[in-house]
Amino acid sequence: MQIVVIGAGNLATSLVPAFARCGHQITQVVSRTLPSAEQLALFVSQNYSQRVEALANIAKVTADADLYVLAVVDDVIPLVAAELVKVIGSGKHIVCHTSGSVPLGTLLAYFEHSAVFYPFQTFKKTEPLLFDDIPLFVEATDDTTRTTMLALARQLSDEVYVSTSEQLKRLHIAGVFANNFTNCMYAIAREQLDRAGLPFSVLLPLIGKTATKVKTINPRDAQTGPASRGDTQTINQHLRLLGENERQIYEAVTQNIIKHTSSDEI
Amino acid sequence: MQIVVIGAGNLATSLVPAFARCGHQITQVVSRTLPSAEQLALFVSQNYSQRVEALANIAKVTADADLYVLAVVDDVIPLVAAELVKVIGSGKHIVCHTSGSVPLGTLLAYFEHSAVFYPFQTFKKTEPLLFDDIPLFVEATDDTTRTTMLALARQLSDEVYVSTSEQLKRLHIAGVFANNFTNCMYAIAREQLDRAGLPFSVLLPLIGKTATKVKTINPRDAQTGPASRGDTQTINQHLRLLGENERQIYEAVTQNIIKHTSSDEI
Repeated sequence: MQIVVIGAGNLATSLVPAFARCGHQITQVVSRTLPSAEQLALFVSQNYSQRVEALANIAKVTADADLYVLAVVDDVIPLVAAELVKVIGSGKHIVCHTSGSVPLGTLLAYFEHSAVFYPFQTFKKTEPLLFDDIPLFVEATDDTTRTTMLALARQLSDEVYVSTSEQLKRLHIAGVFANNFTNCMYAIAREQLDRAGLPFSVLLPLIGKTATKVKTINPRDAQTGPASRGDTQTINQHLRLLGENERQIYEAVTQNIIKHTSSDEI
Repeated sequence: MQIVVIGAGNLATSLVPAFARCGHQITQVVSRTLPSAEQLALFVSQNYSQRVEALANIAKVTADADLYVLAVVDDVIPLVAAELVKVIGSGKHIVCHTSGSVPLGTLLAYFEHSAVFYPFQTFKKTEPLLFDDIPLFVEATDDTTRTTMLALARQLSDEVYVSTSEQLKRLHIAGVFANNFTNCMYAIAREQLDRAGLPFSVLLPLIGKTATKVKTINPRDAQTGPASRGDTQTINQHLRLLGENERQIYEAVTQNIIKHTSSDEI
């Protein structure tokens, strides 16, 4: 396929070389920060023997590509779509965005054949990733578009899911708990250790073990700690040592653990 | 040293072979569940060419060992100490327990030379661990005891800390957040995915990455997600989709993340 990628940020830096690696032609990379687009275009040109054009202006995008990928932040997706439709029209091409939070309808308002192409991982410009084991979620407006996008996804990753915007909302919530909130738990733990004058490194073996265990055990079955033991003495001791917000977190999470611990396990 | 270990459970199953490996003589292993003591004694006898006695009754413990290790659950430490003092007396030997939650004073009430010897990891009988990279926390009633216990700890692990019961309380709280609560976040995430009909495996790459990142980055600096972006639209959308307890957790953790995000990062 001839692919135009709009965006040259964290995700695009991994995605553009991944498309090229699968044999697709990256026609143009577009970014308002032209040097980012140029850098990415140069990388692909050099590594995959393609002629990739770097652009700062969507108005100059070719109307001859097969697929237009919007790898931009959520908020600007409608704006980019509105600009793009003026150049390529609404009926001929497939246009996809890469966000798990923006419904497909946002693109369908502009393009007849649109899709969500959502890789479930966090990306950083400085550390391009391979897509092999990154779950890819695909939603599309019609069968032909879905078939094309699924084929593309399966070239990149072994884990491809056809999904709906409703599913992606739950997936996003799951990601917030499993990653954003987990990271916050690490942060609070670190602050507690700081108060005791102990280094964060003492937690790393246990953190690693907890994260590894869920690969094979349902986390509800792996739950340990004072809440799962019903050890109210320890729980109350901990609550007395915490500030207000940390106490609210401790109480709400403890309640959740207790709710899910069957009485015969206590 | 001649060491008597009281307990043949999750921790003792890792600890007893570790002592033997360092060249110490395990004189006796004591457990009310005699088969557990016998199994552990047999393992050490066979693997480290020692004659280890298995006992069910503390009254039969030798008074000739150098160190008595109470690797038993928190609640029974005072009971075991009360039984043990009748057999070995209060002034001659070093007695330690292995809990991070029971103060040193609990043993000092019975034994002049007592210590806390606390390995910061979760242990399972079925998966004995090496102590090399497990942080060991040592607290002791006096200099001689501390010197002996530190030397023993350093034979087992590269990460040994002299600590106070106050520090261990904070360490325990840190462990609850970083491990027990993190595991609960995984569990809630899994339940959200269940509702969307998606497999938990889609979360594993991100979970692994979050747990790996804290090895090199302060978790406050690694924080991502709607709360750290100040994305109230997404936050409110998520809150509407959650049950009451999950919503309380979401709100309290979100508040913590926002509190610690400097305004220039939003």
